[in-house]
Amino acid sequence: MTLSVKCLKIDTYGENIAYLSCACKIYKPEEFLGLNKVEVSGRHGKTILATLNVVEDEKILGCMELGLSIPAFRRLGLKEGGQVSITPATPPASLDHVRAKIYGEVLGARAIREIVDDIAAYRYSKMEIAAFLVSCASFMTVEEIFNLTVAMAKAGNILDWDHAYPLVVDKHCVGGLPGNRTSMVIVPIVAAYGLTIPKTSSRAITSPSGTADTMEVLAEVDLNLKKMKQVVHKHHGCLVWGGKVNLSPADDIMISVERPLGIDTPEQMVASIMSKKIAAGSSHLVIDIPVGPTAKVKTRKEAMRLRKLFEHIARRIDMVVDVVLTDGTAPVGFGIGPVLEARDVMDVLACREAGPKDLRERSLMLAGRILEFDAKLPGGEGYRTAKRILESGQALETMSGIIRDQGKAEKTHPGTKVFEVKAPKSGQVKTLDCGRLARIARAAGAPHFKGAGVDLLKKTGEKVKQGEPLYRIHAEIGSDFAFARAMAEENSGYKIR
Amino acid sequence: MTLSVKCLKIDTYGENIAYLSCACKIYKPEEFLGLNKVEVSGRHGKTILATLNVVEDEKILGCMELGLSIPAFRRLGLKEGGQVSITPATPPASLDHVRAKIYGEVLGARAIREIVDDIAAYRYSKMEIAAFLVSCASFMTVEEIFNLTVAMAKAGNILDWDHAYPLVVDKHCVGGLPGNRTSMVIVPIVAAYGLTIPKTSSRAITSPSGTADTMEVLAEVDLNLKKMKQVVHKHHGCLVWGGKVNLSPADDIMISVERPLGIDTPEQMVASIMSKKIAAGSSHLVIDIPVGPTAKVKTRKEAMRLRKLFEHIARRIDMVVDVVLTDGTAPVGFGIGPVLEARDVMDVLACREAGPKDLRERSLMLAGRILEFDAKLPGGEGYRTAKRILESGQALETMSGIIRDQGKAEKTHPGTKVFEVKAPKSGQVKTLDCGRLARIARAAGAPHFKGAGVDLLKKTGEKVKQGEPLYRIHAEIGSDFAFARAMAEENSGYKIR
Repeated sequence: MTLSVKCLKIDTYGENIAYLSCACKIYKPEEFLGLNKVEVSGRHGKTILATLNVVEDEKILGCMELGLSIPAFRRLGLKEGGQVSITPATPPASLDHVRAKIYGEVLGARAIREIVDDIAAYRYSKMEIAAFLVSCASFMTVEEIFNLTVAMAKAGNILDWDHAYPLVVDKHCVGGLPGNRTSMVIVPIVAAYGLTIPKTSSRAITSPSGTADTMEVLAEVDLNLKKMKQVVHKHHGCLVWGGKVNLSPADDIMISVERPLGIDTPEQMVASIMSKKIAAGSSHLVIDIPVGPTAKVKTRKEAMRLRKLFEHIARRIDMVVDVVLTDGTAPVGFGIGPVLEARDVMDVLACREAGPKDLRERSLMLAGRILEFDAKLPGGEGYRTAKRILESGQALETMSGIIRDQGKAEKTHPGTKVFEVKAPKSGQVKTLDCGRLARIARAAGAPHFKGAGVDLLKKTGEKVKQGEPLYRIHAEIGSDFAFARAMAEENSGYKIR
Repeated sequence: MTLSVKCLKIDTYGENIAYLSCACKIYKPEEFLGLNKVEVSGRHGKTILATLNVVEDEKILGCMELGLSIPAFRRLGLKEGGQVSITPATPPASLDHVRAKIYGEVLGARAIREIVDDIAAYRYSKMEIAAFLVSCASFMTVEEIFNLTVAMAKAGNILDWDHAYPLVVDKHCVGGLPGNRTSMVIVPIVAAYGLTIPKTSSRAITSPSGTADTMEVLAEVDLNLKKMKQVVHKHHGCLVWGGKVNLSPADDIMISVERPLGIDTPEQMVASIMSKKIAAGSSHLVIDIPVGPTAKVKTRKEAMRLRKLFEHIARRIDMVVDVVLTDGTAPVGFGIGPVLEARDVMDVLACREAGPKDLRERSLMLAGRILEFDAKLPGGEGYRTAKRILESGQALETMSGIIRDQGKAEKTHPGTKVFEVKAPKSGQVKTLDCGRLARIARAAGAPHFKGAGVDLLKKTGEKVKQGEPLYRIHAEIGSDFAFARAMAEENSGYKIR
């Protein structure tokens, strides 16, 4: 009593969907009506949970077939034509804990672990993940945050850097500032100094570029664990995409629900970041919290609360953290978008005059804080040491080595469709709207088109004359170009007075 | 710059899904990545929000087409080949209120109204509905429950029975007891007495039958508003399916999320039921709360809390309610499943000896409580009056009239595949497990196959001899039959001592 599995080539953005024909000879779709999910079991002994859709078109699906969406097919891991059976899915037992949390109970370590394991195994629907996140958003004890952090880390790989590296350092920015690519300057400085910094980064979800997208302009970033370790062994550092090495996988799944819902509590942010850092094997961590009206963290008060939470959890997991509150009022560097940002980074590393001063200074300051984790370095020497490494060319040399060994990328250029946004009047640039400029860069095609984005020509405090260009929009295709241009003409994101 | 709309014949159980080809010439799927939803706009000026899936198979979807799932296609209301455009959807503005509620604020009438209207207009994904429901589950003020109730009622049709009917009465059971079809006995009694009782009922979602499913064995139930009013004008009552007349549509959508999540707070239950009753135009209402260990409401304490909430809200909306706590320890009547239940109902109405006593007594008691809403009837006369109407044959006559004018159904029979579940030992029937028997009836094919279900031969307190039949399973097809039989053999749901 089985069906042949077929990969229906539908990308459901991560959701497991199973498709059953309404004319199915074995199962009646009505049996599954009103149920949340079905369990699909392959002959090879693996099962997945999926939401059921019913197909009423024989051309799409035959009556002896079970269709699976692309992610579901991949997760089941069976070949096309393999035999599967379906049964009504028992909801994950850990949903009882979610309901307890909804009704106001405090969850223990084991309950949290069960929930996180089920989420990481794709046993929760987005609706169920939302229920868990919202129940946590109303209150969470520090103990719960700690347990959530550890459970998330343990649900995936935990990197082990052996005892070859007594100090495994890392940095993390809570985000929200376009162009803030300090990691790409910090990693080569810190690695050149000799501390181990195996940096994993994310790709953009709603921003114009993530560090992984920008690094990809220069080098391969989809490294597996083995290759990543080789690079780190050789250079003390790397700059890779974290998705491939399966660090805290439940975090990525939870973020895919948090983001559209727009819930982003300090508790969840801390658990999310710290779980990734445990998984990355970090022992020492600098956290950059940019504070500004258009950044993610708007006020110093918010930032201080976040800092305390980070410190609380760090102490529990025996990690050394240094939380730095930075200026988050404007984009960092000139470029916003992968190619433009990569250019800025290389200008800074090569100490070219054209390089953006703010990116250089932020990077030196943060790198200095990381270097001071080294007991051998006297307090206050970090910044100067970082500067010396940068100016000596050692950082550039290390970066070149990392790029070469991760795998050099093909050369790319800024998008050739260019539009200059001009100052509507003379005066001084008062503010830049980070969110607006990010959206314009995204409309121009970033990060999908590497060369697309926004290149800032004037920054906060600079004097401008009427008609002088404020920034350039780069795009690679016409529709993006027109769209980004129209957005900039409606509201450039610049305030001049 | 438009695409041709195509109905992809995929039933997504209510979710709006839009399918875009990965080779689309106009839109790049990447543009929409990470977004929650897209807005699909038809040339005819109507728009819907939908979740985007990407199709990588030209045989399913062409590069100049936009596919829509069956419910999405119906809601957009455009013909196949009609021109549509898509844009990233702005999340509903009312999600800000949901976030405020998550962070612990009390919502005002207007905020709740905006949320409910967006839900009723299918602007919320299931994930977003879950977020709202969970945020309400942690706490709700009585004022919020009141506002939610009113907003839900106003989001759909509100029936107006004019001043022809000074008293519009109704009854509602909070559910959980298989076979509890009192409405079908009460409506003809109350209507024969002369009070107006325009009863709308639901179909089963996870139970073996809803009142609408059972009534459908006897008569048409998918009446539109006009036809429903004709029946009520003529007979003072009707028994129709509520889905067709669009009463409190947000409620149905919210239930489709509550149920799989298994969250069912008293607050939401009260808002759900009372919103339907406002919409149905009821002025007086009897609420039946069965209390028992395997019913929905397990303890008298829970039931009392629910009763208080009903009374609170009723006072605010100026509706007269009488909340009755009843025995919820066992199924009511003999049959569980549409045809078997309809047989019980008709036996009671025709005063046949075979009719189940418990269904008759419950119905008379509840009908009596409703009749006492009539100021002309002296207190304490309700039950006796109801009994007189039943025994005089007036109730049966009214039921016949209602069936005739709703449209008589074709005759159906209990499923012909029959299995008798026998007593494993002699003794007395101590308990019947409502949930287990309901699941066995459902496994047998109810409510999809009208004749499927369970027919109880022994009830609580009766003496049985070893090998005597406890109940019969009726099924219409072989696979259901085998499945239900296996379930009953594993655990019959009977306890004998």
